Amino acid sequence: MPEPLRLQGISASAGYAEGPLFSLDRAASHYTVKATAADERAALEAAIGIATGRLGGLIETADSEAAGILEFQIAMLEDDALSGPALAAIASGQPADAAWRQVLDAEIAGYEASDQDYFRARAADLHDIRDQVLRALSEDDESTAPAGAIFYGEDLAPTRFLETDWSSGGGIALKAGSAASHVAMLARSRGVPMVVGLGAAGPSASPANPVGIALLDAEHGGIVLSPSPAEIEAFRRSSSSFAARRDKAETYLARPAMTKAGTAVRVQVNIADLSDVDGIDIATCDGVGLMRTEFLFGKTLPDEETQYRAYRKVLEWAGEKPVTIRTVDAGGDKPVPGLTVEEANPFLGLRGIRLSLARPEILRVQIRALLRAGIHGNLKVMFPMIAVADEYARAAALFAEEQAGLAARGVAQKTPPLGIMVEVPSVAIAPEAFADVAFFSIGSNDLTQYVMAAARDNTAVAHLNSVRHPAVLRLIASVVAFGREQRIPVSLCGDAGGDPASIPGLLEAGLRDLSVAPAQLAMAKAAIADVTV
Amino acid sequence: MPEPLRLQGISASAGYAEGPLFSLDRAASHYTVKATAADERAALEAAIGIATGRLGGLIETADSEAAGILEFQIAMLEDDALSGPALAAIASGQPADAAWRQVLDAEIAGYEASDQDYFRARAADLHDIRDQVLRALSEDDESTAPAGAIFYGEDLAPTRFLETDWSSGGGIALKAGSAASHVAMLARSRGVPMVVGLGAAGPSASPANPVGIALLDAEHGGIVLSPSPAEIEAFRRSSSSFAARRDKAETYLARPAMTKAGTAVRVQVNIADLSDVDGIDIATCDGVGLMRTEFLFGKTLPDEETQYRAYRKVLEWAGEKPVTIRTVDAGGDKPVPGLTVEEANPFLGLRGIRLSLARPEILRVQIRALLRAGIHGNLKVMFPMIAVADEYARAAALFAEEQAGLAARGVAQKTPPLGIMVEVPSVAIAPEAFADVAFFSIGSNDLTQYVMAAARDNTAVAHLNSVRHPAVLRLIASVVAFGREQRIPVSLCGDAGGDPASIPGLLEAGLRDLSVAPAQLAMAKAAIADVTV
Repeated sequence: MPEPLRLQGISASAGYAEGPLFSLDRAASHYTVKATAADERAALEAAIGIATGRLGGLIETADSEAAGILEFQIAMLEDDALSGPALAAIASGQPADAAWRQVLDAEIAGYEASDQDYFRARAADLHDIRDQVLRALSEDDESTAPAGAIFYGEDLAPTRFLETDWSSGGGIALKAGSAASHVAMLARSRGVPMVVGLGAAGPSASPANPVGIALLDAEHGGIVLSPSPAEIEAFRRSSSSFAARRDKAETYLARPAMTKAGTAVRVQVNIADLSDVDGIDIATCDGVGLMRTEFLFGKTLPDEETQYRAYRKVLEWAGEKPVTIRTVDAGGDKPVPGLTVEEANPFLGLRGIRLSLARPEILRVQIRALLRAGIHGNLKVMFPMIAVADEYARAAALFAEEQAGLAARGVAQKTPPLGIMVEVPSVAIAPEAFADVAFFSIGSNDLTQYVMAAARDNTAVAHLNSVRHPAVLRLIASVVAFGREQRIPVSLCGDAGGDPASIPGLLEAGLRDLSVAPAQLAMAKAAIADVTV
Repeated sequence: MPEPLRLQGISASAGYAEGPLFSLDRAASHYTVKATAADERAALEAAIGIATGRLGGLIETADSEAAGILEFQIAMLEDDALSGPALAAIASGQPADAAWRQVLDAEIAGYEASDQDYFRARAADLHDIRDQVLRALSEDDESTAPAGAIFYGEDLAPTRFLETDWSSGGGIALKAGSAASHVAMLARSRGVPMVVGLGAAGPSASPANPVGIALLDAEHGGIVLSPSPAEIEAFRRSSSSFAARRDKAETYLARPAMTKAGTAVRVQVNIADLSDVDGIDIATCDGVGLMRTEFLFGKTLPDEETQYRAYRKVLEWAGEKPVTIRTVDAGGDKPVPGLTVEEANPFLGLRGIRLSLARPEILRVQIRALLRAGIHGNLKVMFPMIAVADEYARAAALFAEEQAGLAARGVAQKTPPLGIMVEVPSVAIAPEAFADVAFFSIGSNDLTQYVMAAARDNTAVAHLNSVRHPAVLRLIASVVAFGREQRIPVSLCGDAGGDPASIPGLLEAGLRDLSVAPAQLAMAKAAIADVTV
């Protein structure tokens, strides 16, 4: 029996899984070289067609989020930027599989070398496309993972995730990977346990050389390979406890959140994409505490009409309940072509409101869309990354200017209450400069990474990045106290708001308004019910 | 008369200069192609020899800092990594000037593409080497700048700086550049006004197309081209005031620092290199508040003996006065080959004590050298980037282990008082976890960049990066108050300590112990004398 091996990474989707380890780093399948370049060309075109068809087939049964990912992959497959160079390589004498692999590997290397999490996360999609076509070329069947297996390897392809039947359990444990990847988003929305960033130190398991049973604790971000009987027993207790908490939590979903002591707590949801609202019953939450708008800023900058329709859709869906929309928070780990710039330390750079004020013509378009959408519901608007009062004043002045412009042209509009994100420590330490804002929304992810000087996406300093550090909780408490004194509402919209382990500390700090990811809603309400404040 | 044009950058060396603008972006000089490849080869080798000789000549009259830079350039010139590929290109038919330019430009592009300020700053040295050799190849005389000119362009070569006679004034205004470059270091130590990061928006001035007089305000980081008479008058008042302050400051150098109200303030110096002590009279300061040790960590990791000798030298120079040595603060903007890692946000990553604790075998070598040096003077040691108390406890435990090891082997040693840098906001917000440290040293540069979430080397957010923001001053005041209550000495060793505009706020926050760059010593003492606390 091998020694137990414990690896620590970062949780990308909470939960527990116990099962055989299934290695993703398999040997490549075999391709039969064709007689002529024309045959090779035909083989590649056919394989791209087969892969496209398979992806199209998966879309049929996919929900909107998964469909979006698959459509992205189909668009890449149909793009000449990939097939063109591969066909050129075939013309110069290469076999189809080598030509395709070479072009895709070069593309993948470019993405993986990026400083930006966003692009590194997209590398997994390219891996997926590469392997889909190679598989169609060789027509080998992939080795099949046993039911309930824990997939272990460098990274996991989104299509592989979608093709897998997760109904009998299983999980994902990645040496590299990113909590911001498409697969991580899918795992969270499907409730599949997933851990990333385990490092390269693990075993080279293969189907032929299994390491036996593995215990994936994706609540705390760890995995144990070849566990001892005592470890298996302890793991099963933790897993049962988690399942019981999750089941029990579901019973809290329909009720308003309340602590053990009877204190009411507002629980709103964070939404990151229009499709998010499809999965949420508005009756189960107190509104939208954070609607991100970065999803609108893709390859091109969105026009006013596109933005207006998106905002209006969410406002009408929410009815009387408040919808807090954040102006575009580009930069940091969210690059936007044509807007953001390359920086040595993007988290400490030109991002959020800083970038919007540097490019006011782009912010003005968003402001006009927001003003026009304002008549369709209970809109609130907030600005990200405010550090000094002047930034708020300038952004509010742009609202006033655009409102006057729309009014002069007779366009229906309504100015929403304007608030700020509290995520730069300066605001939390010296809030008195912001006595005139309509509300505060604490962004605990960024606030924590600045207070601890530990980037939230860096595994090497993850042990320092804790919202439960006394310094972070003290700042949160002081913002809450200032808000009470000044009658300015204070909420929190970071990941900590949906984390059962952090909720007691946040309520003790005085917060009574949390905004959480939709998947965390039930667990958050259940955790609130356990708190004695 | 053209309209006045005002450009804003970052001050790299305080001071004022008024003079004709001299463009650095001149057309390249002409090279006469030779008859044979052998002649081209001989021409390049001769030109490298001439350039090396000129650099060697400059060393004769250079001080130790400038000599270090010139020696670095000579080492690069003598390295086959540059001449080898150039000679190969000549062998394949290229003329010497094109071959050399191509090899150097490729090398420069690599440095300039780096995420790291350190490597981008070194690109200027490569530009310099390239142009020295091209100049030797063409034997053209460079166009000469008029006396008192303000050099304006992308970047300035260190040799160009050293060849220029600054005795009749003049200054440096760079579109790009870096306050961390060799030229910036030279400008500060020679008192030549210099501004970097002015952007590409300025005029394309050339000797043939002058924009007339320019006003360089390197106290505040700005330049005015084609100024109005009123602007010239206002500038001259500011310049006179600065000169008067500087002259008056010299009279303060020999005296202990004291405020107008008679409050004594300790003023220590920061040293970044062994050669720094050559220019300082120890009688003019109260000790060394910060001795950096990164200069020891070059291409290879330094052994215990090398470190011991360096620490001992400074301790013996300082005599009875305290010398506070900081354990290696690698990472962030200070990459060290073999130690630091590539990160998306290095300022929020594995740096300072985090890296040292991750690589304890390297820290242990430094600790042994410090313990052995401790018997030669008044040594104190502090740890950079402490965020949580556990990091201090682990670092202090390594001191205890190494002390025991040396004692067991009969090696003379002495354990110094152990303190921490206060630069991560968590420590300033919740200092109670550090009641057992011997002293606090506030690192205002890092503390400010985290509190404001604005990188200290990013021009785009420079307007947010201010130690005088109430939030930063409030944290400093609370650390000072905690130190008084617990009888733990508190000093400050960031750039703010030597900045006359920041000194009143720092003293009002309760600080009575500042550590400043040697060049700032007199101005700091003069500024302290103006404060009424």
